[in-house]
Amino acid sequence: MLLYLDCDPGIDDALALGYLIAHPDVDLALVGSVSGNTDAATAAVNARGLLRLFGRPDIPVATGAHDFLSRPFHGGAPHVHGDNGIGGVALDTTGTTTARGSAAEELVALARSNPGQVRILAIGPLTNLALALDLEPTLPSLVHDVVVMGGAALAPGNITPAAEANIFGDPEAAARVLDAAWDLTMVPLDATMHQRFEAADLEALLASDRRPAQVLGELLAQYFDFYSGPFGRPSAALHDPLAAGILTGEAIATRAFQVRTVVDTTDGPGRGQTIADLRGSYHPDPKAYSGEARWVLAVDEPFAPTLLERLLSLD
Amino acid sequence: MLLYLDCDPGIDDALALGYLIAHPDVDLALVGSVSGNTDAATAAVNARGLLRLFGRPDIPVATGAHDFLSRPFHGGAPHVHGDNGIGGVALDTTGTTTARGSAAEELVALARSNPGQVRILAIGPLTNLALALDLEPTLPSLVHDVVVMGGAALAPGNITPAAEANIFGDPEAAARVLDAAWDLTMVPLDATMHQRFEAADLEALLASDRRPAQVLGELLAQYFDFYSGPFGRPSAALHDPLAAGILTGEAIATRAFQVRTVVDTTDGPGRGQTIADLRGSYHPDPKAYSGEARWVLAVDEPFAPTLLERLLSLD
Repeated sequence: MLLYLDCDPGIDDALALGYLIAHPDVDLALVGSVSGNTDAATAAVNARGLLRLFGRPDIPVATGAHDFLSRPFHGGAPHVHGDNGIGGVALDTTGTTTARGSAAEELVALARSNPGQVRILAIGPLTNLALALDLEPTLPSLVHDVVVMGGAALAPGNITPAAEANIFGDPEAAARVLDAAWDLTMVPLDATMHQRFEAADLEALLASDRRPAQVLGELLAQYFDFYSGPFGRPSAALHDPLAAGILTGEAIATRAFQVRTVVDTTDGPGRGQTIADLRGSYHPDPKAYSGEARWVLAVDEPFAPTLLERLLSLD
Repeated sequence: MLLYLDCDPGIDDALALGYLIAHPDVDLALVGSVSGNTDAATAAVNARGLLRLFGRPDIPVATGAHDFLSRPFHGGAPHVHGDNGIGGVALDTTGTTTARGSAAEELVALARSNPGQVRILAIGPLTNLALALDLEPTLPSLVHDVVVMGGAALAPGNITPAAEANIFGDPEAAARVLDAAWDLTMVPLDATMHQRFEAADLEALLASDRRPAQVLGELLAQYFDFYSGPFGRPSAALHDPLAAGILTGEAIATRAFQVRTVVDTTDGPGRGQTIADLRGSYHPDPKAYSGEARWVLAVDEPFAPTLLERLLSLD
């Protein structure tokens, strides 16, 4: 598959990127950066450093929007992802590739050159996708589909009681992306909070004799520290990797609904929440209810073993 | 227990009222009506008719607010509860008792006369409770506790994708009630949607040789029709009766969190939703998280058999 990855590495972004590079069916054509876990410029540097680490410095990285559609960048999540977005680890970017245009421009160009072929995986705020829709309103019919790590359908939020961090970062952009007429799959906290790396997974990465796995292990240590709070033990929610697994088909949704969704763009306590109309979910036949976006509410099978195996295979 | 019931009968209100009358430990001192399923004046007539039906025409009914704090009454839910709020059934109100003051005034008087004794069960919009807080700001310390059927913590809403009907009816009132310093238990859709009367329960009521059970069976028929849509078969969610069961202790919460809660009073898509901060719910020790309101998220044991038994005992 021909893939555009929109990301804000970000420690779980780094895991997702490693997984995609290791997957033999994924042809990662372009990476775009966006402000989220860190600012877009730093995220682009991190993406290039990670691509070099994973042996693919040839893949171009386009820097995306620094500010969100209606608000300036908020400063990121250093308490979760470290000062530079990847746990404070400095990566060598020698020989890596920077795309000429912005992430939105490069995405549009890629889609125009490969009509109907490009899949989009967005694992940060949706600013670049909204900007690309501005540049090319027919983008939904030019791309194959879109998979988004973001939102919370019935689960609590993570950055506020109601909102997940990616959607909260740029609710106005998310509203435009969710309103666009593409084949859209949302992978929200409902599914990702239950997919985790535990201490044994971290140890396996650190014990590897391969540098990609070792470095990913180092990045993960900070992330494990953060999750000691909400989970009560060192571990890591696999938000972005699970969305990548849904994209490749190696993670299978066991509970999903296709329902109309509204993003809360008020300034109230629900700002940034994704309101999926799941009132029909009590019905024994969910097909009685349909709408624009497919929400993956659960993935029963643990994705961690598959993810770990692919990350350990990186050379 | 000395009880004030605030209600908008309402078919499931009728079941709750019957259950409370039938329960030997409940001393129902006063009923207040509020606009919700129907207008407050009609709700008061329905409450008096039901009290007469249940053999307690002596219990006073106080008519409550017709309009909500910031908006006019919306017209009720005739598609769920019938034109008059109780399935179109006309009840005799001969010899019933009307209180002199408004519901808010009568509640305050009752609380002042019995400091620390009165329990409040609110199963409609929270307008009267908010008005009572205006009349008597120390009301929270004058009453024993408050149990509310309302809200949706993690479950979908029912009247909108995000909001439950009682809270949506008067979000400004709900915000004031949730901010007040009383011992407050919320019984939201998360719990009530899974507690149901099925066809056999309806048949048992209709087959009774006692008039209260027969009439409740007639009322239920329309409610069963409505729930054929969302549940895919004729049945009835026991919203208000479950809250009454939590009040008496005959329904036991098997999953509950005490967390800070905000009511969305914006005009956005989340208006009327209850945002309970359940981000701590992933932690293995929920005691690590606490706040003002106790949310009953699940009652595992079916409450229907207890409810049915009590309703069949009404004479």
